[in-house]
Amino acid sequence: MGYETDTDADDERRVRELFEKLYPICRSVTGPGLRESLGILRQEFPLEIEGVSSGTDVFDWTIPDEWRIHEARLVGPDDEVYADFEDHNLSVVNYSAPVDRRVSLSELQSHLYSSEAVPEAIPYVTSYYERHWGFCVPETVRESMPEGEYHAYVDSEFVDGELNYGHALLEGETDDEVLLSSYLCHPSMANNELSGPLVMALLYDRIADWDDRRYTYRFVLCPETIGSLAYLWRYGDHLRENVVGGLVLTCLGGPEPNLSYKRSREDDTLLDRLVEQRARRGEPVETRPFAEMFGSDERQYCSAGFDLPVGQVARTVYGEYDEYHTSADDGEFMGFESLVESADWIADRLWEFEHAGRQRNLEPYGEPMLSKRDLFPTVSDWSDQTRQLTGVGELSEEKFFKRVLLVLQYSDGDHDLVEIADERDCTVEELVPIVRRLYDEELLEPLR
Amino acid sequence: MGYETDTDADDERRVRELFEKLYPICRSVTGPGLRESLGILRQEFPLEIEGVSSGTDVFDWTIPDEWRIHEARLVGPDDEVYADFEDHNLSVVNYSAPVDRRVSLSELQSHLYSSEAVPEAIPYVTSYYERHWGFCVPETVRESMPEGEYHAYVDSEFVDGELNYGHALLEGETDDEVLLSSYLCHPSMANNELSGPLVMALLYDRIADWDDRRYTYRFVLCPETIGSLAYLWRYGDHLRENVVGGLVLTCLGGPEPNLSYKRSREDDTLLDRLVEQRARRGEPVETRPFAEMFGSDERQYCSAGFDLPVGQVARTVYGEYDEYHTSADDGEFMGFESLVESADWIADRLWEFEHAGRQRNLEPYGEPMLSKRDLFPTVSDWSDQTRQLTGVGELSEEKFFKRVLLVLQYSDGDHDLVEIADERDCTVEELVPIVRRLYDEELLEPLR
Amino acid sequence: MGYETDTDADDERRVRELFEKLYPICRSVTGPGLRESLGILRQEFPLEIEGVSSGTDVFDWTIPDEWRIHEARLVGPDDEVYADFEDHNLSVVNYSAPVDRRVSLSELQSHLYSSEAVPEAIPYVTSYYERHWGFCVPETVRESMPEGEYHAYVDSEFVDGELNYGHALLEGETDDEVLLSSYLCHPSMANNELSGPLVMALLYDRIADWDDRRYTYRFVLCPETIGSLAYLWRYGDHLRENVVGGLVLTCLGGPEPNLSYKRSREDDTLLDRLVEQRARRGEPVETRPFAEMFGSDERQYCSAGFDLPVGQVARTVYGEYDEYHTSADDGEFMGFESLVESADWIADRLWEFEHAGRQRNLEPYGEPMLSKRDLFPTVSDWSDQTRQLTGVGELSEEKFFKRVLLVLQYSDGDHDLVEIADERDCTVEELVPIVRRLYDEELLEPLR
Repeated sequence: MGYETDTDADDERRVRELFEKLYPICRSVTGPGLRESLGILRQEFPLEIEGVSSGTDVFDWTIPDEWRIHEARLVGPDDEVYADFEDHNLSVVNYSAPVDRRVSLSELQSHLYSSEAVPEAIPYVTSYYERHWGFCVPETVRESMPEGEYHAYVDSEFVDGELNYGHALLEGETDDEVLLSSYLCHPSMANNELSGPLVMALLYDRIADWDDRRYTYRFVLCPETIGSLAYLWRYGDHLRENVVGGLVLTCLGGPEPNLSYKRSREDDTLLDRLVEQRARRGEPVETRPFAEMFGSDERQYCSAGFDLPVGQVARTVYGEYDEYHTSADDGEFMGFESLVESADWIADRLWEFEHAGRQRNLEPYGEPMLSKRDLFPTVSDWSDQTRQLTGVGELSEEKFFKRVLLVLQYSDGDHDLVEIADERDCTVEELVPIVRRLYDEELLEPLR
Repeated sequence: MGYETDTDADDERRVRELFEKLYPICRSVTGPGLRESLGILRQEFPLEIEGVSSGTDVFDWTIPDEWRIHEARLVGPDDEVYADFEDHNLSVVNYSAPVDRRVSLSELQSHLYSSEAVPEAIPYVTSYYERHWGFCVPETVRESMPEGEYHAYVDSEFVDGELNYGHALLEGETDDEVLLSSYLCHPSMANNELSGPLVMALLYDRIADWDDRRYTYRFVLCPETIGSLAYLWRYGDHLRENVVGGLVLTCLGGPEPNLSYKRSREDDTLLDRLVEQRARRGEPVETRPFAEMFGSDERQYCSAGFDLPVGQVARTVYGEYDEYHTSADDGEFMGFESLVESADWIADRLWEFEHAGRQRNLEPYGEPMLSKRDLFPTVSDWSDQTRQLTGVGELSEEKFFKRVLLVLQYSDGDHDLVEIADERDCTVEELVPIVRRLYDEELLEPLR
Repeated sequence: MGYETDTDADDERRVRELFEKLYPICRSVTGPGLRESLGILRQEFPLEIEGVSSGTDVFDWTIPDEWRIHEARLVGPDDEVYADFEDHNLSVVNYSAPVDRRVSLSELQSHLYSSEAVPEAIPYVTSYYERHWGFCVPETVRESMPEGEYHAYVDSEFVDGELNYGHALLEGETDDEVLLSSYLCHPSMANNELSGPLVMALLYDRIADWDDRRYTYRFVLCPETIGSLAYLWRYGDHLRENVVGGLVLTCLGGPEPNLSYKRSREDDTLLDRLVEQRARRGEPVETRPFAEMFGSDERQYCSAGFDLPVGQVARTVYGEYDEYHTSADDGEFMGFESLVESADWIADRLWEFEHAGRQRNLEPYGEPMLSKRDLFPTVSDWSDQTRQLTGVGELSEEKFFKRVLLVLQYSDGDHDLVEIADERDCTVEELVPIVRRLYDEELLEPLR
């Protein structure tokens, strides 16, 4: 594949340790928990951290004040503590307003949240843009709550601060960029929060280790929705001009054996078609249309005004598993081996993507003479001969020669390598060694 | 649907009464019967009536002289009257030349027309552009005609006059026009003559009653072929510039339960695709390709030089029923309830069409903030919530939100609402309340 | 079809006699055998013969020295002659270097070629661009060869000469050209060598005999690959500007009942689609994609720098039969009747192709008045009438009229006749008499 990796076991240990540091922190779309998390990740790869001030108008939105949460506790008429932020940071509604009131159980109901689907877990509820207080409890707890007067106590404040995000660049031979983006904002969740940043840390190293790199890689970590909007507000023009492909990383762990790729709004970008080609060939990946509309920051990156060629990749997809947005989405549910597998698969696709674009045949008038370059035998009797190709294995001389001709004949600036591979019923990955050999022979060059 | 209708029973009574007045008149492509018919219809909706003089060259054609028919009778050797214009105006070939001759039965044969398919009915035969005399009789009568000398008598004349048509406009917010056209020229036929004008009268009122109207509606009644050619000769440049969609109305009654839509020459205009979408979803409509070539005035409107985006809608299609072009195509065959159903269905499609075009998202940079507009809940726990939408019924908050996002994300000027609805596997009709709400919120505007 | 042919029996006799003269000659990509063959074919149709000097750089290639072969013999330790150029000109590797050495059997192996697939036949082996000596023998002979010392003797020389090709033109009404190309370079082979030039000789006469000819026909005979490269080097700019369609003729005999068409690189040129239409309708032709990559001179004509709209037609396809590239590909294997059938089929397709392009309706505003041109009855009762059309047979008046309208309505400069025929589920061939009639009526004209 052109790059060296640590062993999978080392990678698994690495993400597990990183997870232990990040999981307990109470993150939100702003605030100290978000900054602390970015700081920890900066030790893994060179994130530059920036901020946008509260109150700033960002397109149709406004950056909210920072939320600071100190204490939150719901005590029953029996002095039982039914929800306590100290026990689990999901116990309080994220961005809950402060409250210190005694309320009846029935009055409390509209401030109380639980999940019927996972009755033992605490659900994750937010109210970022309208002041509201509330507690989240397991459904089993809620059912046990007696009538009587409850003490609802939330000690939180809203502070004029900023929204933070981090980003890093790995420069390549061209200014064309591949955007890799994930989010940080959910407190104490695993698959739907930390799987993205953890896989990103692995990807950074894999891509940094490639022999060469045609594209520049941009790694972005931001709060979901409002964070990617803020990032687009700052860097949208640059991205629109330079991004040639990208992926939002989300939910990359969990029990699902296959990866799941959500196509971009354009539906047929080079990366969309490259992944479709793998899916069509029965590989462990499925694809979803952009039009499903639920999702992550691709909703912002692909919005009509930017329309970036960015897909999304997941494994155990948000909304399709009961533990989603509850305390049951924890490290055990997510797993660590699957994160490493996700990173491997994504790195392989990006390596394919590096070569998948349109090419120009530099000897387009007739076929170039291949035998003088050892790309074809000099004597016409060669039916038994084979070649060894890195990453592809043994190939008959006939198959090799047909693929060389195919790449040359269709490298006219109109066909990209995904289309060319389709003609030969193979993958871009299988053509990469041929393409690289033709680069070396100065018979081919990549086009933007 | 945004408009009020009389009850269906009222409508049925109205078209039945109108039919009684129009049916007995001997119409042709020119002449007093045509003018009388236009005059009756003018009392239903404000038709302006115009004429093009006989002898005028209209593209490759020439407007013929007016035909005036006074008497026509075929009397046998047994003094039996075998055909009499006074009994049925189909008894004489339409545009028959005058004749007053005694001829043998065998000589008569080439001037005698009957229908094997419907032996009891008088067939409808014309000879507009070459002088020819003739009689039409039931096949049963023809078989009974004895040898001997017949008296063929037609008292008709050809007069330098004009060809008439009528048209009316219902103005809308834009100059973009929807063309609704039907024909008047067949004497005493119902499904293949009066069904079109009768449905047009109903449609005029339905469209006039809408709350608002994006397009201007043009209603045209003209003799078939030569009449639409004359209309195009006068108004073709204007139509080519302004018509964004249209329908030729023909054969809208009869026993067929489903409507049948003939696509335009372009085959994939907005209206073509809108109707295809309904058909694909199993609704009571089928579609036919333009390439079938038989048809009505869409053959002229869609001709290469004009190429208007005009389809044709029918129910019991010309040429596909035995009674076609015979005296058996009468009021009973046509029915009146089916006319009202046809008008309802067409009005619904036009209402869809009003909203089906490309839209522009006015906040295209990222998603607009929906919760501040009550288009999305402020607290993230909303799985059980629903909304009520006019004409659509109850929709889960999730479905509603996905549709809102879908419309916004794809309203980039490239996708029209038919394509957008296809993405969500629903109809344009189901998206109309959402689109209208987004207009109200100033998040969306229609594009031409 | 608009042309007269000799009887098939005459044609068969003609190609058989021509074959007898050409088969024994030892051809190669250059040299006296090639020139002698071109000289014989020049007596059949007016080929102009040209040459490109040895050492000339032709794109990425260099024209090799001429090869002259005088003698070649392999004598065993038992004085047995195991291979002798005098017995069969395939016995020596084509372009073999001279040699006069005594070698052991094991040393000899890397200079000895045989075919496991056809053990009784001598295989055909070449080494044009690297000096190498060698002999070709039947596998059965090879197995019988005893250990011991062999005398390998090849008396050949490489001479600074030229590469020759021949070409002829049949001029048409326009400068638009149809390229028909085949190759001459294989010694003593039939299906994969002489079938092409023999069919070309038949085609020349058929096309010369047509009543009229819209396109100019260019006939090219050259050595395969290096010859077509040399031809493109000389005439490529002219071809790129003028060629509107073309065929490489190869392997047109043999036992296969169906023809096999290889589409151009563009994959959907007019000719590609015309042949696909026949194949779709179950006619005796199959099609192959260009991307198969093995092939003949279409690989050069279609290369990205020229990208000519040229397909390839074969019957018993190279590489798909065991006798390919062996002495068993002889006159008996090829057959002569199948050559005549191939020529007939190809001539029919070219006649179709003459009319298959885009047309312009000269009366595009509405339908032209057809009855005044006897293209439609003047009286509307015509259900039983039929018409007789050359090459199509009897057609109902209804079908005729629908086809006339179809051609007129879609002749808007955007649709070609292949698309129009598809709409009517018929072939271009069936529309040709209608198109020609509309030319005569000045209602239609062909567009480039």
